[in-house]
Amino acid sequence: MSGTLELITLINQSQPLTDPKVKAAALAGVMDYFSSSLQAKDEIQVQQLLNWIEQEGGHNHFWLIGQNQKATTRQAALFNGFQAHLLDYDDVHAEVRGHPSAVILSALFSSIAQEQTDISGERFLSAYVIGIEVMARLALAVGSEHYVKGWHNTSTLGGIAATAAICYLHQYDFMSQALAVAATQASGLRLLFGTSIKPLHAGMAAQNAIQAVEWVKAGLSAECDFLDPKSGFLAVYGKDKAKLNLSHWGESWKIVSPGLWFKTYPYCSAASYVADAALVLASTIDVSDIRSIDIIFSPQGDEALIYTKPELEEQGRFSAEYITALFLLNKQVSFADFKPVKVRSDVADLMKKIHRRNGVSTGRRFVCIEVTKQNGQVISYQVNQPKGSPENPYTQQEMFAKLEQALNDKHKAEQFYHILQQLPDNSVSHFVQQVAELI
Amino acid sequence: MSGTLELITLINQSQPLTDPKVKAAALAGVMDYFSSSLQAKDEIQVQQLLNWIEQEGGHNHFWLIGQNQKATTRQAALFNGFQAHLLDYDDVHAEVRGHPSAVILSALFSSIAQEQTDISGERFLSAYVIGIEVMARLALAVGSEHYVKGWHNTSTLGGIAATAAICYLHQYDFMSQALAVAATQASGLRLLFGTSIKPLHAGMAAQNAIQAVEWVKAGLSAECDFLDPKSGFLAVYGKDKAKLNLSHWGESWKIVSPGLWFKTYPYCSAASYVADAALVLASTIDVSDIRSIDIIFSPQGDEALIYTKPELEEQGRFSAEYITALFLLNKQVSFADFKPVKVRSDVADLMKKIHRRNGVSTGRRFVCIEVTKQNGQVISYQVNQPKGSPENPYTQQEMFAKLEQALNDKHKAEQFYHILQQLPDNSVSHFVQQVAELI
Repeated sequence: MSGTLELITLINQSQPLTDPKVKAAALAGVMDYFSSSLQAKDEIQVQQLLNWIEQEGGHNHFWLIGQNQKATTRQAALFNGFQAHLLDYDDVHAEVRGHPSAVILSALFSSIAQEQTDISGERFLSAYVIGIEVMARLALAVGSEHYVKGWHNTSTLGGIAATAAICYLHQYDFMSQALAVAATQASGLRLLFGTSIKPLHAGMAAQNAIQAVEWVKAGLSAECDFLDPKSGFLAVYGKDKAKLNLSHWGESWKIVSPGLWFKTYPYCSAASYVADAALVLASTIDVSDIRSIDIIFSPQGDEALIYTKPELEEQGRFSAEYITALFLLNKQVSFADFKPVKVRSDVADLMKKIHRRNGVSTGRRFVCIEVTKQNGQVISYQVNQPKGSPENPYTQQEMFAKLEQALNDKHKAEQFYHILQQLPDNSVSHFVQQVAELI
Repeated sequence: MSGTLELITLINQSQPLTDPKVKAAALAGVMDYFSSSLQAKDEIQVQQLLNWIEQEGGHNHFWLIGQNQKATTRQAALFNGFQAHLLDYDDVHAEVRGHPSAVILSALFSSIAQEQTDISGERFLSAYVIGIEVMARLALAVGSEHYVKGWHNTSTLGGIAATAAICYLHQYDFMSQALAVAATQASGLRLLFGTSIKPLHAGMAAQNAIQAVEWVKAGLSAECDFLDPKSGFLAVYGKDKAKLNLSHWGESWKIVSPGLWFKTYPYCSAASYVADAALVLASTIDVSDIRSIDIIFSPQGDEALIYTKPELEEQGRFSAEYITALFLLNKQVSFADFKPVKVRSDVADLMKKIHRRNGVSTGRRFVCIEVTKQNGQVISYQVNQPKGSPENPYTQQEMFAKLEQALNDKHKAEQFYHILQQLPDNSVSHFVQQVAELI
């Protein structure tokens, strides 16, 4: 098998939590997952998906986070993935070029409902770390061509990564077959960015992982190599002769290096470069004094920002123009600025003055905004490391504030934090029970 | 919108059943769908999927064909698609390069469970015809490169086609959004051929269509153009600048021309050329007298036959070598020859003498088998139009015999045939009820 056996062997031998940095990163990821999910729990789209689940029915296997309701493992994976990613408020990983935790944690949590044996929090966190590792290495293997072509990595790679994580968690001996079933379900187009289906991609990927594992467990055969060089996952979804690089496995972990990128804003991380620059410029520029605005991206830096003229606010999550105009007009943005309604006319007017162009490659990502005033004067600001990125992270206080806002209760946030710190020494089902009771 | 609006307009204006040939073809397709599905109803893999559905639970919306059981619309679409395609015994369409009816009919039948209004059999059959039309035209648009790259058309194109069919059936005004949600779920790799997941691809595609329609109906937005030239379905899954050709829509229908290709054998239609040639040669050749065998394919004619040295019988459905050896040794093949067990040693030995090569293109598909005897004498036989293909169709009697075998009861087969003939003038839910009671 072309790398698959080696991958599975490496996964099954892994004990990533022996490194305290890895443990801390995994706990931070779980905390942010709950913050992002709970912030979204009252959104209209959440209710729409809940109604659909109600209409399906099914056994009550696992908790729908923040809802007083349980659902099947498959539905819970779908729902929890969706809710965690709904506001585009959940973590990002630069090498993954997508959102790992919404998929992997949603799938992992659901998977525990189908097993009688108690799983330790330490093994659960390890499985999460491994999921991110697989997802990032798959992303590096398919290369940026995959994303540029139009695939949404969160979805196409997330299902496979989550399947690997689940199989590690429960020590399933059918990981090779499950990976093939996950690969044959891989889908998700960037075309859907700016619609309610984009966050559902995270749920779909988590659902695919649950289906992959459960179908194989039910007895359906999938004896083939998901990394087959001729017609396997990388051959079909990747560039020509794409290969999975497994070197230096376990020497450092992708969850630490380059690390997770957290957000306190509900738009695409690619727009956070734009946002940080626009925020600085907003304090010095009067909108009526603007003749034109140029946004200069490092090459392919705006690939995710597919809307240059968004008509709906929710499309604005993926629009450099919308975010820039919003900051210049309002000096801030909030959740209320990204609803499925028409863009305000003053924002639409200002967007018309904005143009994008590609800058010269410096070997790393940047965005520079150049504002030309009516008198011809040019003011510019460049961002290389936006707030929240691993090189410029939020403080623990800021991440706690995100949790507190999501729970809307400081005491509950403190209790959640306390419960979370005990997870490595506890069983994961006990952790889930405690959290469900708290929220 | 790049063709999408035109496509939807054409679909909604279509009344294909005014042509009696179309009506007859649609009825033949429905009959073969039930024959193929019922033949598989007692297979071990069917029980495995039933167990999984049992474990999920859910409301009883629609019948699992041939089982004394109902399930949710999503589960029923998944299950019925799987069962219809399980033995690779269901219809094929040359332009689709896959199995349209297992996907489209499974999705269409399930969809009626969610609507209160009665749907006429005529409209149901029309929706089926339209589904095949969309699937074939999408297949022509993505081109043979799509299949050759490793995609399984049945799955990648089936979900979108079935979504179009459902939206036509119920006159939904959200077809554009539903098509985008179907497109972003499109998946399925030929890598899985020869495993139990290959037939599940048909179920997955039917499930995707149900999900696409139900999610949009639940309120989730998907305002985008699934044929977007930059990042839409054809741009990502097709060759460069792939375009959907809508000319001559409704002048003839793909279900009639080139028409459905029916099977009375449980292996890939690409192997049926091989099988027909091997059967002829089997009557004149003694296996002990064979020195070597050459199978000559028209260019790319063996793309679906991915196993040259199958280890398991079920992989043999996609092996020219297995089918040839089987016919030469046994003079016939049966369902019992394609179980998930090791290939018999005498078959494995004979397969070692078989080699493939590509012949010179004649502009149409063919297979020629050349047997070289121990004394050097060469005997060959070429097949251009295998039995069951639209140019060499089975008789009505032969198709009835398939139904009778599946039902294992001549009287029931006659009754089914009678009920089916009334479908165009009946409601489809009445038809389903009658069939369920009969079986």
